[in-house]
Amino acid sequence: MTKINDLFGKEVAVINLGLASMAKSVSDQNVKVFDLDWQPPRDGTPRLHRTKSGINIDEANQEVVDRIKRGQAVLIGMGLAKDVIPGMHKRMILHAGPPIEWKRMCGPTRGAVMGALIYEGLAKDEQEAEKLAASGEIEYSPCHHHHAVGPMAGVVSPSMPVWILENKAFGNKAYCTLNEGLGKVLRYGGMGPEVYARLKWMETDLYPTLDRALGTLPNGIDIKSLIAQALHMGDECHNRNRAATSLFLRAISPALARTNQDNEVLAKVIEFIDRNDHFFLNLSMPAGKAMLEAAEGVPGSTIVTVMARNGTDFGMRLSSMPERWFTAPAGVVQGLYFPQYTEKDANPDIGDSTITETAGYGGMAMAAAPAITQFVGGTPQMAMQNTLEMYEITFAEHQNLTIPALDFRGTPLGIDVRKVMETGILPRINTGIAHKDPGVGMVGAGILRAPEKCFQDAFKAIQEM
Amino acid sequence: MTKINDLFGKEVAVINLGLASMAKSVSDQNVKVFDLDWQPPRDGTPRLHRTKSGINIDEANQEVVDRIKRGQAVLIGMGLAKDVIPGMHKRMILHAGPPIEWKRMCGPTRGAVMGALIYEGLAKDEQEAEKLAASGEIEYSPCHHHHAVGPMAGVVSPSMPVWILENKAFGNKAYCTLNEGLGKVLRYGGMGPEVYARLKWMETDLYPTLDRALGTLPNGIDIKSLIAQALHMGDECHNRNRAATSLFLRAISPALARTNQDNEVLAKVIEFIDRNDHFFLNLSMPAGKAMLEAAEGVPGSTIVTVMARNGTDFGMRLSSMPERWFTAPAGVVQGLYFPQYTEKDANPDIGDSTITETAGYGGMAMAAAPAITQFVGGTPQMAMQNTLEMYEITFAEHQNLTIPALDFRGTPLGIDVRKVMETGILPRINTGIAHKDPGVGMVGAGILRAPEKCFQDAFKAIQEM
Repeated sequence: MTKINDLFGKEVAVINLGLASMAKSVSDQNVKVFDLDWQPPRDGTPRLHRTKSGINIDEANQEVVDRIKRGQAVLIGMGLAKDVIPGMHKRMILHAGPPIEWKRMCGPTRGAVMGALIYEGLAKDEQEAEKLAASGEIEYSPCHHHHAVGPMAGVVSPSMPVWILENKAFGNKAYCTLNEGLGKVLRYGGMGPEVYARLKWMETDLYPTLDRALGTLPNGIDIKSLIAQALHMGDECHNRNRAATSLFLRAISPALARTNQDNEVLAKVIEFIDRNDHFFLNLSMPAGKAMLEAAEGVPGSTIVTVMARNGTDFGMRLSSMPERWFTAPAGVVQGLYFPQYTEKDANPDIGDSTITETAGYGGMAMAAAPAITQFVGGTPQMAMQNTLEMYEITFAEHQNLTIPALDFRGTPLGIDVRKVMETGILPRINTGIAHKDPGVGMVGAGILRAPEKCFQDAFKAIQEM
Repeated sequence: MTKINDLFGKEVAVINLGLASMAKSVSDQNVKVFDLDWQPPRDGTPRLHRTKSGINIDEANQEVVDRIKRGQAVLIGMGLAKDVIPGMHKRMILHAGPPIEWKRMCGPTRGAVMGALIYEGLAKDEQEAEKLAASGEIEYSPCHHHHAVGPMAGVVSPSMPVWILENKAFGNKAYCTLNEGLGKVLRYGGMGPEVYARLKWMETDLYPTLDRALGTLPNGIDIKSLIAQALHMGDECHNRNRAATSLFLRAISPALARTNQDNEVLAKVIEFIDRNDHFFLNLSMPAGKAMLEAAEGVPGSTIVTVMARNGTDFGMRLSSMPERWFTAPAGVVQGLYFPQYTEKDANPDIGDSTITETAGYGGMAMAAAPAITQFVGGTPQMAMQNTLEMYEITFAEHQNLTIPALDFRGTPLGIDVRKVMETGILPRINTGIAHKDPGVGMVGAGILRAPEKCFQDAFKAIQEM
């Protein structure tokens, strides 16, 4: 058989469109193959201009993205979940993603629920916690049903301190716990004495220290502004929050110094923040929630206002149908694993942190964060390509969130179900990876796409709207 | 006359090589012109491989860049200039750039000298200060003759507190004052009560507060590491130091909290740093100096180890001739001006901050800092192009200082006089702009190239080496 290179009389390279396996016979001949991530265009997907009821969809979508852009997410205070989150009570546990009952919960969510019950003093050990969790005495509810968001398992229990953000343009609020750091932590399903001790310290030391400082800042801290600045400093504010964490510390430190006389506690609080580049994630997320919730409820819109995963299901909601979850099985994350782990250890995609992509940053803004590829895998070129691709499925560009490397172009904003269906391009998400078993914790970070089924179902619902 | 577009029968665009004026007749016809910054290649410049005395130049240059790369610049302490800078005495004033006497000093340097004499209590007003400055009683000496560097006018007077950095790989030290902030400040030639009051507060409050904190950090603070991290966060550590300033504050804040019981002073110190994104410049610069000085004195090398300007002259030194200044008139900066100022107000290029380009960051790393163009002008594409161009005239790439957007390629390191002469490409510098008159201060920021004459003279000297 004639070899490819012999045929051409020189060394060639091949671009492969379609399945990677198609090019195997070529790569077997030591010919360099570039696999292009490509699908044939959908034919037959109609561009919807009006709903059945006659609403102009572009006008509805314009209203949605205008509201998101006008959003002003400001950190205004803190409180304990049971005191401040609407609907929260002593036997309620909030979780990430769409609704789910105990028996369908994935390992890390179970671990986080059990850990939270022990932290709350409702169970003395894991065995007791598991029994209580399954007993029916605990009410489970999605964070998103309470104006809240939670990273990974997203578990919020009554005694946990939470950030309170207000969308100053619309007056609505959003809530999120404080970030625990990396490694063995509750949100990744981690259990054990060090996990509970850290949560307790966050309740008794971190929270009051930060709360005292915040109390002296009459205008709060403008989180949207910090996100915009961080996008100029190599963050995308989902999986890279190093600049934003730094800017947050700069913003609060003078007030921290003025309001806290116990200098050793103050030093420990600053160290806790300094040692966790993801500290800002739990501010970036409720900022997105606060800005998106104000854009919910616009009839006729095809814009996504919630994407969230509970580790079992991926769930999505639209501005025009804010109460309805479109769900599909949560996807598998392609990523970089910590040394002792592999893809076999990974739980499917989990967490509410996809609120960032929904709000126009996170994966949407990867072009602003080339160094993130050291954490989630891939290359800086891929990060750039990721953002460029997302312009294909979004309705607008966010003029307040700009990407220097793209000549200060606004980030892709407002995932439009119509465009997803027309192009076959699914939103890309970058995320942390939890161990599939309860009690272990984080095992890596990576990238995946949202499941197509949610968009297919949503598109059908839109056609009936 | 036939119009260009008529000639081609469609709309065309023209790429113009050479003088912009050459394309005027084209652009007059409403044809789009792209001016390429290009010069014809030099012919007749011999590639030097060995010195007259027989030294292999590539080997010598390799030794120089190896030493720079091995450098470990660590902030180890602070002190007053008169106590810690070698050769400093009570009637000495250090300045940026190559040696210069009072009567040739530019406006901002004169302003800074006069201001320093008032700050020191050696003169009671500007008139007295000018008289003393010109009297011959004050000894002027370049910072570079004392292991020091200074931004803009670079004036160091005896009572000023300075950072002390040590190159841990070689044991040599470097010194720099603390950054005063922007606007009307001494280093831009600013004079007036608020300038002296700020300098005094820096001496009585800022310095002891920081010094106490540093005293409790046995390993100091690794400034090279902060530079490397900041290059992944949109800084180039010459005119953009926002991330590095943030990281520095993170690194020192816990120790600040532990060592300072006066919480109002502590808060003011943190605020002072937080309000000045250039605070880190005065650490970035001595870090470069510490790493470059260890690479001085390698016979046969054609690598530049100092570039510095006093606002009148640009001066350059080579590793192989560390005592000899090659000088030329300081250039004019192309830049962005504060609203009330224009190029007419600008002093020529000034300051020791070109130590950053010499050490492989600053302008060399502009591709890492696309957002800097909002401060110094130009476009993100130009920032990228700037770094790519600098690879043409540098001997090596710095594996510890990498640029994510270039797939983590090392920064261009080690300006090689031979390559500058062969290619005709002069090092690009990005810099602040001082008002030409004493007493005013900063008027903008911009970009320029080092003067060709220094490289021509150095090249001649190398041929005789």
